[in-house]
Amino acid sequence: MGGWKQIEGYLAAPAGFRVAAVAAGIKNVPGALDLGLVFSDARETTAAGVFTRNLVAAAPVVLSRRNLVESRGQLRALVVNSGNANACTGRAGMRIAERTARAAARLLGIRNEQVAVASTGVIGVPLAENLLLDNLPFLVSGLSREDSGAVARAIMTTDTFPKSVALEARIAGKPVRIGGVAKGAGMIHPRMATMLSFITTDAAVTPALLGRMLRDKADESFNRLTVDGDTSTNDTLIALASGLSGVRIERMNAAWFGEGLTLLCQTLARMIAQDGEGAQKLVTVEVHSARTFQDADRIARAIANSPLVKTAIAGSDPNWGRILCAAGYSGAQFNPGRIDVRVNGVYLCRRGVAARFDEAAAKRELDRKEVTLRLDLHQGKASARMWTCDLTRDYITINASYRT
Amino acid sequence: MGGWKQIEGYLAAPAGFRVAAVAAGIKNVPGALDLGLVFSDARETTAAGVFTRNLVAAAPVVLSRRNLVESRGQLRALVVNSGNANACTGRAGMRIAERTARAAARLLGIRNEQVAVASTGVIGVPLAENLLLDNLPFLVSGLSREDSGAVARAIMTTDTFPKSVALEARIAGKPVRIGGVAKGAGMIHPRMATMLSFITTDAAVTPALLGRMLRDKADESFNRLTVDGDTSTNDTLIALASGLSGVRIERMNAAWFGEGLTLLCQTLARMIAQDGEGAQKLVTVEVHSARTFQDADRIARAIANSPLVKTAIAGSDPNWGRILCAAGYSGAQFNPGRIDVRVNGVYLCRRGVAARFDEAAAKRELDRKEVTLRLDLHQGKASARMWTCDLTRDYITINASYRT
Repeated sequence: MGGWKQIEGYLAAPAGFRVAAVAAGIKNVPGALDLGLVFSDARETTAAGVFTRNLVAAAPVVLSRRNLVESRGQLRALVVNSGNANACTGRAGMRIAERTARAAARLLGIRNEQVAVASTGVIGVPLAENLLLDNLPFLVSGLSREDSGAVARAIMTTDTFPKSVALEARIAGKPVRIGGVAKGAGMIHPRMATMLSFITTDAAVTPALLGRMLRDKADESFNRLTVDGDTSTNDTLIALASGLSGVRIERMNAAWFGEGLTLLCQTLARMIAQDGEGAQKLVTVEVHSARTFQDADRIARAIANSPLVKTAIAGSDPNWGRILCAAGYSGAQFNPGRIDVRVNGVYLCRRGVAARFDEAAAKRELDRKEVTLRLDLHQGKASARMWTCDLTRDYITINASYRT
Repeated sequence: MGGWKQIEGYLAAPAGFRVAAVAAGIKNVPGALDLGLVFSDARETTAAGVFTRNLVAAAPVVLSRRNLVESRGQLRALVVNSGNANACTGRAGMRIAERTARAAARLLGIRNEQVAVASTGVIGVPLAENLLLDNLPFLVSGLSREDSGAVARAIMTTDTFPKSVALEARIAGKPVRIGGVAKGAGMIHPRMATMLSFITTDAAVTPALLGRMLRDKADESFNRLTVDGDTSTNDTLIALASGLSGVRIERMNAAWFGEGLTLLCQTLARMIAQDGEGAQKLVTVEVHSARTFQDADRIARAIANSPLVKTAIAGSDPNWGRILCAAGYSGAQFNPGRIDVRVNGVYLCRRGVAARFDEAAAKRELDRKEVTLRLDLHQGKASARMWTCDLTRDYITINASYRT
């Protein structure tokens, strides 16, 4: 069993997968990729998914959830578009999602319920069905074993860079690969972060085990991520496993495969935080020596969600009082008089009061592209971590006129 | 029993109260008022308070809570400063708060535990004790029955206007008065909004009844207010009742007095929302025809706290999808297919899908200084309301370098 290493090829790195993307005209930007397809050639492909908990779930979420059940975890294709979320679009929106899946199934020679669909973009605007249906044949004929990153680009909305990664490791001499893409940027919040992410692997794994692992790993990655506290209508994370590596994931090697899956999901989650709308900095919040995990988790979440903490980081202002304040209203139980706060190793606060720190040195740390806020509570052994970004004027600019 | 009408005089409008404010040099702005005193000449004055639920409570909060108990609800003086929150300042901060109360008590000829103190401003920076102690004699000798708004100005931080109001009504021919001041602007969130508010009245009311009414009214006003979701370390709401009107509040007239108190608190709460950091607009979120109050309340809070909704309002973008999205993740149970959404009466969404609305008309409504978002769920009879403001680039600018 070797360690997981980064490789080329993204979603098509695992054996059995082909991908394609086209500019379908759903985005208002001429020539911009906005429709993608991921397909597994393996008949035995298994699948699992994690979806938004928003009660107002978009049509594609409703359909993909249903198809996952009806296919008994045997999805083989994902159709995804950006530029329109197909959310709050009523029955018309649901019909469009269904027709898209049906058309893709026919072109690919698989059953209707083996297709998942996902959409991201503006909410409440009817999606032009023909833009999807007319372009599906081109997508299918364009399917390729080489993923140059086109699918990652086709799901971008306000993202400033495509997010994809592929990993490989060997077990008993056989290579196993995992590929993943994600989009994030706005409406990013734990349980699920507003995001789309698709994962492929050539491991062989039952739908039940894949589902369990996917939920676990999402909890350690995408669900530890917040940009603005808004949980979207469209969050979708789907994994497909072709089995073509010949390596079956079972009790013996589940931890090893899980490591790869965690690494992949955390890499994508960090990319999403780093690329939060208007963000200049990737912020990691670490809470250590809490009495319970729940306390550590609450504190980390409150700090990562605090607009005041995040604007202070945008301005490189070592305003540690706001960090303590957020910890204080988190609902966690702790003794404020014991807390230490560090930014990239520089102590701002010791035992609940100001540390003697060099203002210039603290500012220098806050000016970096990666900022780690570390709290030590000195009350126990539990810890938790969250990823977020700074809150800048550009977040407002981007979101003040997104729809129009 | 007459209705409540606005009168002049603010905190000193009720009989028995004198106020003063000075520029003590705690703020970095020369000549800016930053230290205030409210004093009741009536020996029988009663008091009640509501304080932050933040675990990291500032020294003045800890002391005022304690003095309220130790005086058995018989506070007679409030000393309040802006420019420094005296929070996260350890034992030294606690000693300064205690010495301030003691010095004020001696100068005013009352017991130590009859003084409450409150502070607002930067967190984690030691408060210069002498600035408080040296200025207390001037405050005491400057006490006046006329409140020209100086106390309201002395508690301002990033507020752009002072917030004060006084009301009068008659019962059995006798006038009863209530006065109030507040400060808000940043770190404003329900339970308690990050704010200071002080209320005076010449009604006679027991500490227990005053406390019950104050908590009730805070729930209908300050606790229905959010600017940025951050609950501060210093939130303090204190009411003093001199009893000098000769009108005793009892079961028979409690509702009548409560009306005045509600009106006063809601007026101040709306002023705080209107003056949220960087805010251009006062936003009222109303949720109607929910199955339960809890559902209505959850939806109203989620919408009022959504950065995406609030940036859309800043940009006058009728992005109703974000409103439904926030309702969807609020945790409330409802049927998304039945929701109507209106902005100042213009329907943006009917039965969960886009209404045919005139984009220009919707934009015109969103351009107003007061914007009401109204949701009708068509599922029951419960309703709830929240006040907030739009989220602008100026919020970021103000908060990116508050401390430095």
